[in-house]
Amino acid sequence: MDAHLNQFYAQVDKDQNIYVERLREVVAIPSVSSDASMRNHVFRMGEWVQNELKRLNVEYEIRDPGTHVMDGHTLQLPPIVLGAYGRDPAKKTVLVYGHYDVQPALKEDGWATEPFELVENEKGELVGRGSTDDKGPILGWLNAIEAHQKLGIELPVNLRMCFEGMEENGSEGLDDVIVAEAKGWFKDVDAVCISDNYWLGDSKPCITYGLRGISYYKVTIKGPGRDLHSGVFGGTVHEPMTDLAYIFSKLVTPQGKILIPGIMDDVAPLTAAEEASYPPLDFNLSTLHNAIDAQNTIHDNHIDALKGRWRYPSLSLHGIEGAFSAPGAKTVIPAKVIGKFSIRSVPNMVPEKIDAHVIKYINEEFAKLGSKNQVEVECLHAGKPWVASFEHPNYVAAAKAVERVFKVKPDLTREGGSIPVTLTFQDALNKNVLLLPMGRSSDGAHSINEKLDRSNYIEGTKLLGTYLWELSTHQF
Amino acid sequence: MDAHLNQFYAQVDKDQNIYVERLREVVAIPSVSSDASMRNHVFRMGEWVQNELKRLNVEYEIRDPGTHVMDGHTLQLPPIVLGAYGRDPAKKTVLVYGHYDVQPALKEDGWATEPFELVENEKGELVGRGSTDDKGPILGWLNAIEAHQKLGIELPVNLRMCFEGMEENGSEGLDDVIVAEAKGWFKDVDAVCISDNYWLGDSKPCITYGLRGISYYKVTIKGPGRDLHSGVFGGTVHEPMTDLAYIFSKLVTPQGKILIPGIMDDVAPLTAAEEASYPPLDFNLSTLHNAIDAQNTIHDNHIDALKGRWRYPSLSLHGIEGAFSAPGAKTVIPAKVIGKFSIRSVPNMVPEKIDAHVIKYINEEFAKLGSKNQVEVECLHAGKPWVASFEHPNYVAAAKAVERVFKVKPDLTREGGSIPVTLTFQDALNKNVLLLPMGRSSDGAHSINEKLDRSNYIEGTKLLGTYLWELSTHQF
Ligand SMILES: [Zn+2]
Ligand SMILES: [Zn+2]
Ligand SMILES: [Zn+2]
Ligand SMILES: [Zn+2]
Repeated sequence: MDAHLNQFYAQVDKDQNIYVERLREVVAIPSVSSDASMRNHVFRMGEWVQNELKRLNVEYEIRDPGTHVMDGHTLQLPPIVLGAYGRDPAKKTVLVYGHYDVQPALKEDGWATEPFELVENEKGELVGRGSTDDKGPILGWLNAIEAHQKLGIELPVNLRMCFEGMEENGSEGLDDVIVAEAKGWFKDVDAVCISDNYWLGDSKPCITYGLRGISYYKVTIKGPGRDLHSGVFGGTVHEPMTDLAYIFSKLVTPQGKILIPGIMDDVAPLTAAEEASYPPLDFNLSTLHNAIDAQNTIHDNHIDALKGRWRYPSLSLHGIEGAFSAPGAKTVIPAKVIGKFSIRSVPNMVPEKIDAHVIKYINEEFAKLGSKNQVEVECLHAGKPWVASFEHPNYVAAAKAVERVFKVKPDLTREGGSIPVTLTFQDALNKNVLLLPMGRSSDGAHSINEKLDRSNYIEGTKLLGTYLWELSTHQF
Repeated sequence: MDAHLNQFYAQVDKDQNIYVERLREVVAIPSVSSDASMRNHVFRMGEWVQNELKRLNVEYEIRDPGTHVMDGHTLQLPPIVLGAYGRDPAKKTVLVYGHYDVQPALKEDGWATEPFELVENEKGELVGRGSTDDKGPILGWLNAIEAHQKLGIELPVNLRMCFEGMEENGSEGLDDVIVAEAKGWFKDVDAVCISDNYWLGDSKPCITYGLRGISYYKVTIKGPGRDLHSGVFGGTVHEPMTDLAYIFSKLVTPQGKILIPGIMDDVAPLTAAEEASYPPLDFNLSTLHNAIDAQNTIHDNHIDALKGRWRYPSLSLHGIEGAFSAPGAKTVIPAKVIGKFSIRSVPNMVPEKIDAHVIKYINEEFAKLGSKNQVEVECLHAGKPWVASFEHPNYVAAAKAVERVFKVKPDLTREGGSIPVTLTFQDALNKNVLLLPMGRSSDGAHSINEKLDRSNYIEGTKLLGTYLWELSTHQF
């Protein structure tokens, strides 16, 4: 294995400019999935992926998720491309996922260069929309296959692929395909690897084993039958905004403590292994201060800050629909206001139980107000938290691959947000899912001047290939 | 006087269709002051007023307030028309005010008929934009003059007039003219009468002796340098929305009690005369329930409700700028939120003292939160409350005029909102100001299907004339 890997690394180093040109080619296809006028480019990008699989002798099929309605137009959804490379029953089978669509980008938004023209700057950054999210990682898998083919070395595992073109727009249609293919295209899968997130910092690779869930609520408070003038009616009616301010003030403290009884009951206790994973992390408070462009962090040390980010639930008040929200000084008593807030959940919290606690508590608190207004609490959407065991061979293999390529133990991270497909794969296939990122924290995935460092791209290609070799050595 | 008034009433009754046609003529001029594309019609309406004054041998001059900027356009302001009818030093001089501009109106808004075509319906309502606000009352004064001229009866007082064309758009330029003319056009004025409000109910006339003031605040809370994703940063930063919810919840109870210490200190005690003025009022809780199209009133009797509306201060939370306010479920942590609220003030509250109490209290409450965010409190605009003595001869005369025309004692009312020009006249001229409405509570001044009952228009014309006669009998 060592010999094969060393040959592989040499080949990747040798072909790195080919890989960069390949990335240039795909960045030039503006496959923005959330813009109806760009949908044809998403399809072009889907074609590109299929042609590349054909060139690499990867079997593939497409799944057509049908249509959806966006901005009043009925649009065709881009194909979900399923690949299969190797069908040797003696080998493990790894499913890799990536998305070939990208976020919108306009030069006018503040990009230093044309967003859909890949530019390598003096720092060795490959700047362009989609470079790190998620075209670079998709190419990483394909580059690794190509390098092995050039060397005449057989991959040590079977690969299955799932590449979609709607991730930046809600992954429309994907869940159904995953569920339908669990006993079909994905039936032999032993482990899943998703490369679509980022290192915690900028200097040290990580592998990611947890994501928070979300339960998003609206609290509707209805009072008068129409908006009223505060001069004529202020002092005579129960005002929905007043009631909502009270409810909002009872949900969470300024220090982030959630006040809803029962909500913390199901939070899994911190294990010793987890506790031990924090000190080595490539993170400090100034990283966080830079990220938020301010100093108003709750915690005075980075470990508690990271636990606040991803290990414990949080509650954020997002805003109010129906109240006066424009500049200026309107003297309205809003008749009906809809407060929006969400709870980021962690294992072992369960959406149904979160709902029950939230709804009961708000109704009780509202009753205390003695208001004649009406309240209604509703969960708008919910996603479960996700956590995987980082002691699973899938993670052990990834950690060994990081050590082999980067000569450092990876950070073991979670993330505060959610990547819904992670949970779908886990639940539908009932296999361990690993998040193995290629890019860095500073890549600016959804921002202007998105980039992927050349070193992350090239060493990342090595990492993905090495992970397959390491995984093949495990029994599970 | 009785004989003159009886002749006057007969003339008004005889000419009532002429008056209705005159109202039809002015309603047909869509003098919408808040719509740049309609500004020429406001000027046409100003011309109409001047031609009418000329026809009635009223001396007049115009004052040109210059230009203002609206929707990015620099626009000429319509003229303020000053009239003088009679200069007999032996007579009292009464200043009357009205505005010849109107609110916007479109058939599509839900009008049953074309808004700028006066229609008399089967209930005897004259429906059309501006009928009651404020073209009907202006014509009331002019009709009264015309009737006296036809009868060859001299008015018992000198009249001064102030008719503006920007009331529905902030009365731009008016204050300066009033202040400048205090020792000029208005120098002999003994009393002021404004007919630009409404009866308390639909069956009984009122005279209005008080208006609440307003102090409008914004509370800005600044946290992170940019909006954050609640998944990535929820649980790590002090969120401005959380802090604002706490501040909002400390301002007023759901029962309308203002929680800011000191704010009630300057509220004038209720006098016995005031207390006695409430029971006869044409008002009950179902009037209020109809007006708000709901039952969520704070008080269980109409007298406390009216005191809540106009006799005591109130605090309303209007909304939040900078938070998520659209439909849907955005997971943002807003970086900077601006809470808007206002206090309706009553005599003897003083804006500067209100500001001091509000700013001190919010800063103290914010300090208790232990948040690293920054707070700033600012008064956006303030207007003083106004109250006049209803024992002043100006009010006594108006009350007698009501009794003579309507055979009933008028309601003595205040209003919860403000009519800023009232205070400007009082402060600039230092004379008693009377609000003497022509229309009813249900006229829908700023709504669809605005109307003025024919009876209110005709009896209102009699009322305005009679008021002048009654006033002439007083020494003050
Ligand atoms: Zn992505
Ligand atoms: Zn993305
Ligand atoms: Zn008006
Ligand atoms: Zn008006």
